[in-house]
Order: sequence, then C-alpha cells, then structure tokens
Amino acid sequence: MMQSARHHDVQVFQLAERTGRMNASVIREILKITEQPGVLSLAGGLPSAASFPVAEVREACAQVLRDEPHAALQYAASEGHLPLREWVAADLAAQGVECSPAQVLVTHGSQQALDLVGKVLVDDGAPVAVEAPSYLGALQAFTPYGPRFLPLEGDEGGPLPEALLQAGAKGRAASDRARFAYLLPSFQNPTGVCFSQQRREALMQAAREAKLPVVEDNPYGELWLDAPPPRPLASHWPEGTVLLGSFSKTLAPGLRLGYVVAPTPVYAKLLQAKQASDLHTSGFAQRVVHAVLQSGGGTGPSFLQRHLPAVRERYRAQRDAMQAALTRHLGKGFEWARPQGGMFFWVTAPAGVDTLACLPQAVQAGVAYVPGSA
Amino acid sequence: MMQSARHHDVQVFQLAERTGRMNASVIREILKITEQPGVLSLAGGLPSAASFPVAEVREACAQVLRDEPHAALQYAASEGHLPLREWVAADLAAQGVECSPAQVLVTHGSQQALDLVGKVLVDDGAPVAVEAPSYLGALQAFTPYGPRFLPLEGDEGGPLPEALLQAGAKGRAASDRARFAYLLPSFQNPTGVCFSQQRREALMQAAREAKLPVVEDNPYGELWLDAPPPRPLASHWPEGTVLLGSFSKTLAPGLRLGYVVAPTPVYAKLLQAKQASDLHTSGFAQRVVHAVLQSGGGTGPSFLQRHLPAVRERYRAQRDAMQAALTRHLGKGFEWARPQGGMFFWVTAPAGVDTLACLPQAVQAGVAYVPGSA
Repeated sequence: MMQSARHHDVQVFQLAERTGRMNASVIREILKITEQPGVLSLAGGLPSAASFPVAEVREACAQVLRDEPHAALQYAASEGHLPLREWVAADLAAQGVECSPAQVLVTHGSQQALDLVGKVLVDDGAPVAVEAPSYLGALQAFTPYGPRFLPLEGDEGGPLPEALLQAGAKGRAASDRARFAYLLPSFQNPTGVCFSQQRREALMQAAREAKLPVVEDNPYGELWLDAPPPRPLASHWPEGTVLLGSFSKTLAPGLRLGYVVAPTPVYAKLLQAKQASDLHTSGFAQRVVHAVLQSGGGTGPSFLQRHLPAVRERYRAQRDAMQAALTRHLGKGFEWARPQGGMFFWVTAPAGVDTLACLPQAVQAGVAYVPGSA
Repeated sequence: MMQSARHHDVQVFQLAERTGRMNASVIREILKITEQPGVLSLAGGLPSAASFPVAEVREACAQVLRDEPHAALQYAASEGHLPLREWVAADLAAQGVECSPAQVLVTHGSQQALDLVGKVLVDDGAPVAVEAPSYLGALQAFTPYGPRFLPLEGDEGGPLPEALLQAGAKGRAASDRARFAYLLPSFQNPTGVCFSQQRREALMQAAREAKLPVVEDNPYGELWLDAPPPRPLASHWPEGTVLLGSFSKTLAPGLRLGYVVAPTPVYAKLLQAKQASDLHTSGFAQRVVHAVLQSGGGTGPSFLQRHLPAVRERYRAQRDAMQAALTRHLGKGFEWARPQGGMFFWVTAPAGVDTLACLPQAVQAGVAYVPGSA
C-alpha cells in the first residue's frame, strides 16, 4: 500500500527547506556502480578487512558480556564510557594535545561528530572555510545546516596561512567571517597531503590571530607509512580547536566509534546535541573497543603499538603497488604526489581530459575511481 | 590548557542560533540526582536489566564474528542490514502494516529516527502537533530544527480527532498548518495511555481528511501487560504515516538499534539525512540483533515469542506492585490510571501541590520522580 501511493505522499508531506540542499551523494552512487562484480574499485576509502582485529574483537565481546553485561546493554551516559574517554585523552596527550576526559565526547563514528559540529556551529548562510578539495562526507554533514563554503587557497603543502587570515579577517563584517576552518592536516581525503610542522605552526598562528576556530579532522593520522605526521593542529591552539578522531581506520569501521574533543563551552553544546540526536553511543561497542585497546595487557607495548605496524605495512605495500601501477600505466601529463600516509592518491589529468566523462568507459574496462569534480 | 581558557573559548567560537534553544534536559539532571546511592528512582524509563537476553547476545556475537567478521566490521549501506530490514517489514506486516524492506531505515536507536524526522520535516517556525504531555526526548530531538509545538487537546483516551483536524485544517494559512502530528498511541511516555481501536480509526480519518501526516512512535507496543494494543496508526493510513520502532525495550537499549519506516519520497530524504549524520548504523550490532531474533531457529515460536512473555510477566508484577504502593501510600486527591502496558504511571496531584517543589524533599526521603512541569 505504501509503495503504490507515491503521488499522494508528495502532497501529504511538506519537506523542510534544508532537504532541497540534501542530495544523493555522488560517491554513494559511484560506490554502487563499483559493487558490480569484476570492477576493481579505486573509488572508496574502505579499510582493508584483512587488517581488522577479529580475534581481539571476539575475545572482547565475550569478556564484556561476561564481566558487565547489564551495564553494557543498558542506557548509558551521553558523554560516553569513561574508561574509553580516559584512553582517548591519554592517547592525545602522548601526541602533544593536552585535554581532559571531560572534553571527550564519544560519537557513532566521526561522521556523527561532523554532524554535531554542524548542528552547534553552523547557521543558515554562515561561511565555513574548507580546503579545496575537502572530504565530501564533511561537506554533506554540514550542508543541512546551510553553510556557505569558502574554499581556502592552498598549494601542494596544504592551505595557505594567508587564506586563513582572510577567511577570519577582522576587517570583514561579522556575518562574512568564517565560523571555523575545517582542516584535515594528515593524509587528507582525497588529496593525501600531510601538512608539515612548519605549515601547521603558521596556519595555527594565523587562525589564532584571525580568531578563526579550527575543526581538525584526523581519521588517518595513525596510518602514516614513512614517518609519523607532526603534532595535531589542536596542540598549537587547544582552546580554539575542535578535534575529531575515529577508530574506523585503526580498528574497524563497522563498530562506528569516533570522538570529538572540544573546549568546555563548545563541548557542553555538542553534548546536548548528541543527547538530542541519539541519546548516547552504544555502551556495548564502547566497552568492546576499550577491551580491544587493552588486550594483551601487562607492561609491554599496547595493543595499537603491536597492531598498527602490520596495518601500516599492508597499506605501504598497497601504496607502493599503486605508485608503480600509475607510473607504468598513466600517460604523459598525469601528475600526482606519492602519499606518505592514509588511503588516497590524488591524480591530476592533463588539460582537456574530463575525468567524469571518462568514468563509464573506465568502469566498463573494469576500473572505478572518483572524479575530482565530485 | 583547554580547561583553563574558558573565557577565551566564548570569544573564539560563535555558536549557531539553534544552540540557544538547546538546553540541558531536565530529565537528565533528575537522573543524575537519582543516581545517588539509596535513592529509589521512579524517574527514568530504564528497562529491567534482568530481562536482557545476555546469553543470546553472547552466542550471536560469536556467530557473527565466526561467519562474517569482515562484512560485520566493514563500512556498510546507509539503509541498514537487509535481513534485519526484512525482519522488520515482516514483523510490521504481522501487525497489519504493509510495507516493503525498501521502506525500512535502520537507525542508531529510535532517538536517531526522531532526529532524522526533525531534519527532514521541520523548518524554523513550522508548527508540529504534539500530545500534551509528550515524550520529552522527542521534543528535544525536534527542537534544534525550530518547530513551534502545538499541543493537541485530548482526554483520558488520547488526543481528540477534532484537535488533529484543527492542527491541519485547510482553512489555516499554509505556514500555520502543522507539518505533522507526533503521536505515541501505545502506552505513551509519560502518561501510559493506549489509544483504543476506535480512537485510532477516528484520529487517522481526521488526519487523512486534514492531510496532516502522522509520525507514530511505537517503542512500547510489545510491552502490553493485559492485552495487545490495537493495530498501529500506520495501518490506517500508510502513505501518510512515518512509523518509528525500537529494539531497546524488547531486547536491550545498549545496542542502540531502532528503525523508521516511511513512504518512499520521505524515505529518500531520511536516507540522505542518515548518511550525512553518521554514514550507517553499526553493521556488527545489526547482525547481532538479527542473529538474536533468529536464535532458537526452526519452525517453533520465534525468539521474541519465547522472550517477550517473560518480559511482560516481569513488568506486570512491577506494575501491580506500583499500583498497590500508590493505593496504599498516596493521600486523597491523587489520581492516576493503572497503565495497561509500557513503563510509566502518570499521577495527578491534588490542586495546590507543586510536584517540582516537592522533589528535593522526596529525594531526601529516598524516592525520585519526574515532575509533570518538565
């Protein structure tokens, strides 16, 4: 019955204006195409399933359901599971970001953290500064809240400090000042760029000077292949930075666990938004992830210290194979930087090549990619 | 560092206007008080942890991690896990609601479904018709999107059909017509009321006539104590109804699994909103819940058919104990209806009693409740 009455529905339901800005993701549509058997997809950022710590997750599930099944399966605090928040705060401290567990909010994947940031910091028509290109999922998360995206001028090392100064410049009318700059400093999706230590310092000095808050998204920082990335942007200006992290790339995305760390007044609003959005993140999943992080225990290297080298080894081999294949197969005029971490190659085609128009042919030939126009 | 710079933060971050409408939940604050040891809390709707199917969840986790660990821990489709969506569609069909699995969107608890409904159907200033009182969590979910709540006039059997006609009346200016009526027909939180079959028919006839869509929230339907509730509202007008359901009360809330069923055009927008909000619900949790629902297998009664009678027995005993205690201890002038399902008693105090003002005394005496003013 519901199915057969489509034309009625349209009359009955009045959709919110913001739905006009919401569209089916190009990436989503591409991913559907690439799910056809026989197509080698270079399009999605899917972590390698072979790297998932299945045995540890299995043991952690058994442990949690043995030791505290009722707490794990009951309603829980919106902030998240305290031991996991303490783990995050300690992990960030080791990277030079001082924060308290009271500033850590556990989210249902870091995509939810992006949605909460949009809900709390974006008004209809408010400018938001973003790298060009930036992570499409973030643009999608912010879009329902009505931002005007201000692309930041940049070079091969990331956005330029002057661009941040401009986006936040005090000379501008308040309504024209960006609410924040959304930055992915380490092995960005899609370009793979990692900002240098020097660039980070210059960017954060500019942000501070321009009183332009920074939303730092760091899902790939642990996936360095050659050398660890410099300290997070948040370490340079903690009271002006909201930092997003994820367990999707270090453990597994299917558990949907991420987090956001924010200065106290922003945290209070993110927490209210989280509560309104879904009450809290699964207490079972949080305990399982915490147990995995503790697994092996004792005084030796931590689980991630043992797990991540093998993950990096795997991605390093894939990166090198991709680099070799691009060198071998791409014609003159194609350019790209060999990424030093993360999961993405950003290839620039010669002038006159429309990569969107080429996609159907490529898929027919058995290879899929995301065109830059997306 | 972040902690010590509160006064700076306020200057740096400009919060979205909607954050001014977002407040710490009264219920949340009350729940904190009631967590003091020695306080008997009648305030929260926490399912009884003793009813959680811990053994089945343990077995389901082991099974999923044995049979399809990589799929369970990988990124997945935003719509949800197809076998679970098929289960939901079949379960609803058995209740008289015809729908296809393609109309079922799995959410991170039904609270997330409320947030998605707000995102897709509520504009700033748009009227939304609600029962008086209604579920506070829903009001919280809708509030960031800026609704004007229109309380529906009602009696002890639920809202009046005339009130729906009025809220959607064609005579009104379009901007004054409610976008939808949010209704909890079965054992509502907080009043415990269950709409009769006759009331349901009359309400949905009125909704249809007034072209007023209905958002039906049904987390407690399976927790009937004396007799099953009448068919869902959606069965009377499927193409005008969005239906929300949850596994929090039938299985356990800590897994955070709910769903929303919607006519196709609304579904498409809810799906885009879901994708922007958190990409997808945990594929691991979805498989675990599906495995629990299938557990025991074979041709006999389903898991829920075996599990729910014991759950109902437990809540029935609690309801009867509460009824006896209220009868014994409450003085003249207190009135309440004995609920026929769900988890809530709604007690009306005699005129002149301020239940909010009495709460601190009650807590000191060792009992907590939610005052109606909340």
